[in-house]
Amino acid sequence: MIYLDNAATSFPKPDKVYEEVLRCMKEYCANPGRGGHYMSIESGKAVMEAREAICSFFNIRNPMQLSFTKNATEALNVAIKGLLKAGDHVITTTMEHNSVVRPLKTLEKELGIELTFIQGNEYGEVDIADIQRAVKENTRLIAATASSNVNGIIMPFRKIGEIAKAKGIVFLLDAAQGAGAITIDVEEDHIDMMAFPGHKSLLGPQGTGALYVRENVILKELMQGGTGSNSENVFQPEIMPDMLESGTLNTPGIVGMGAGVGFINSFGLENIKLYKAMLVKKLHDGITEIGGMKLYSKNDINHNSGIVAMNVDGIDSTEISYVLDKVYGIATRAGLHCAPMAHAALGTMKTGVVRFSIGCFNTVQEIDLVLNALKEIVLKTQNN
Amino acid sequence: MIYLDNAATSFPKPDKVYEEVLRCMKEYCANPGRGGHYMSIESGKAVMEAREAICSFFNIRNPMQLSFTKNATEALNVAIKGLLKAGDHVITTTMEHNSVVRPLKTLEKELGIELTFIQGNEYGEVDIADIQRAVKENTRLIAATASSNVNGIIMPFRKIGEIAKAKGIVFLLDAAQGAGAITIDVEEDHIDMMAFPGHKSLLGPQGTGALYVRENVILKELMQGGTGSNSENVFQPEIMPDMLESGTLNTPGIVGMGAGVGFINSFGLENIKLYKAMLVKKLHDGITEIGGMKLYSKNDINHNSGIVAMNVDGIDSTEISYVLDKVYGIATRAGLHCAPMAHAALGTMKTGVVRFSIGCFNTVQEIDLVLNALKEIVLKTQNN
Repeated sequence: MIYLDNAATSFPKPDKVYEEVLRCMKEYCANPGRGGHYMSIESGKAVMEAREAICSFFNIRNPMQLSFTKNATEALNVAIKGLLKAGDHVITTTMEHNSVVRPLKTLEKELGIELTFIQGNEYGEVDIADIQRAVKENTRLIAATASSNVNGIIMPFRKIGEIAKAKGIVFLLDAAQGAGAITIDVEEDHIDMMAFPGHKSLLGPQGTGALYVRENVILKELMQGGTGSNSENVFQPEIMPDMLESGTLNTPGIVGMGAGVGFINSFGLENIKLYKAMLVKKLHDGITEIGGMKLYSKNDINHNSGIVAMNVDGIDSTEISYVLDKVYGIATRAGLHCAPMAHAALGTMKTGVVRFSIGCFNTVQEIDLVLNALKEIVLKTQNN
Repeated sequence: MIYLDNAATSFPKPDKVYEEVLRCMKEYCANPGRGGHYMSIESGKAVMEAREAICSFFNIRNPMQLSFTKNATEALNVAIKGLLKAGDHVITTTMEHNSVVRPLKTLEKELGIELTFIQGNEYGEVDIADIQRAVKENTRLIAATASSNVNGIIMPFRKIGEIAKAKGIVFLLDAAQGAGAITIDVEEDHIDMMAFPGHKSLLGPQGTGALYVRENVILKELMQGGTGSNSENVFQPEIMPDMLESGTLNTPGIVGMGAGVGFINSFGLENIKLYKAMLVKKLHDGITEIGGMKLYSKNDINHNSGIVAMNVDGIDSTEISYVLDKVYGIATRAGLHCAPMAHAALGTMKTGVVRFSIGCFNTVQEIDLVLNALKEIVLKTQNN
């Protein structure tokens, strides 16, 4: 199978990820921070090493400000619901995933917050001036994706961060598609909170994610439970990361997430970016050359995190995706990608798009096979 | 290391669990239910097979009523916060873990619910008549542990279920220490909601847990996000299990949890119970025989899920646990075990207890070594 669904979850993982997950499970996996014995301490150390490696990757200075979650969705819910109060105004974009849209719409309905959705251009890119203009007295949060999961467009998040900083507004970056795919620096980019999964471009296992919270941003936790700290207290401790990490952590998963980051570091994020950009450009250019298809992604490294979104003229995306899978063994994702507003913005609400999402283990040969398949499909369509 | 901290997380796991987790990660792990391609469908199937196996284990008739969570703590938060409204009365016990106590105390403070804690006897066992007497007009929920994580005492949960059913009250069972250790049947035991982890007696990996919700119990979800269903809707779908499963699931973890249940089935839960009860009795009797120690657990299979809680007279639990680890290589857990009210009930709030929690991979030889170690420690203490 040619796997081009890396935006859903990356596959395969680096060998080191498999090895470290298994080694953790088989050799030392006790409950981290929940006991003083050797294995518990080893597990605690392994979690701390992963926490530090991940923080260092994003220039997060205090590792205690990173809390592990089960996925980016949990991290986004914790960030959004932990911060907002009735009457707050939130600026976001039409390119957001349902993991941002649904919590916000729920709070709008149930808590009474106010929402402004900034409309992007034909690729979904927002105009910074529009964000600037949307700021109001009660604007508490700007929530934006680093890169769209539909077409890979990279948002001008550093500039958004600058506006947020200047106005004293909290900036939440949804880095679900960005983390491990593009360069993110929480200091340079003025990011106050960042939610990201471990199992996408960070190359870790499923069941992992994290939320970074800047020291001066005070959240209310979404869940309470055992933290292994302040156990005599029947209320949740307010120290980070314990406050946001109730219950047993996914130690092997976190270790694997750390190993994924280790792989990226050893290969070099810049190298991975260049390699994937080359594949994106090849696929994008090939599709243009064949013709009979419409593209919804840009094809340069500064505006695309690794996705080619397209449609064959006049045919529903699910049909093309189905044929690619059944006839050619090529895994893509069709439909709405849990991002209806993004599709509305791109004008693809009815047809969806066929999404090719490229990972660092894809090859030039695979892209050639994809282009041959598309050529055949388009030819067949035109002959019908 | 002699691992006797299975109540924190079980170790080791059955070989089949390691194998299936790794096979999933290496061979087919895409995003389940998020695409129509071969690998995504394989992942979806694997999750469904695990869901069915786990449901069958607890006699849950409709697998769609089981939602996967990251741990039991998340499941408990979803159950408690999803159900309760201002003015509701909740009956619970003093033997609960902080994963039950902290969400309830938080709702008492912030939402205005009313709490009644039923006090147990010297072992923490509650009197059913006390629960019956505590029921009020506005009692909406009874939340009780299946078995204490401090001393292993098994609660009379079937009888609690009968009361709840008769009075039309929702019964939530915290099966963190019970699931996979004692027999639980959601029909026979009249359980309306059940929260449990995958990584304790069910022998699955960390990062897994689940919440069962009976069809007629309507919850509000704690988190919203992408569900792969109703993607065009900016609000959370209300169908189970999607409603409670936002974001990417932990596919390898869930597969491993299913493999853990498969192992229990192949060995037989009754056989595992008998084997562990034999080890518990051996350790318990041995401690009594040595003397100079106080026991807080019962020693028979009907009243103990696999824990021997004890203290050496006059010495803090953390000190004993430390010596057991450093000198003898025996892993236990001292302190309060995230259950302060249980320790208050047992009279061990100051000293904590040393908790030996037994798993199905412990051996008679290991218990002999533990008893020898305890004998030496007690002797040394008495000579000081």
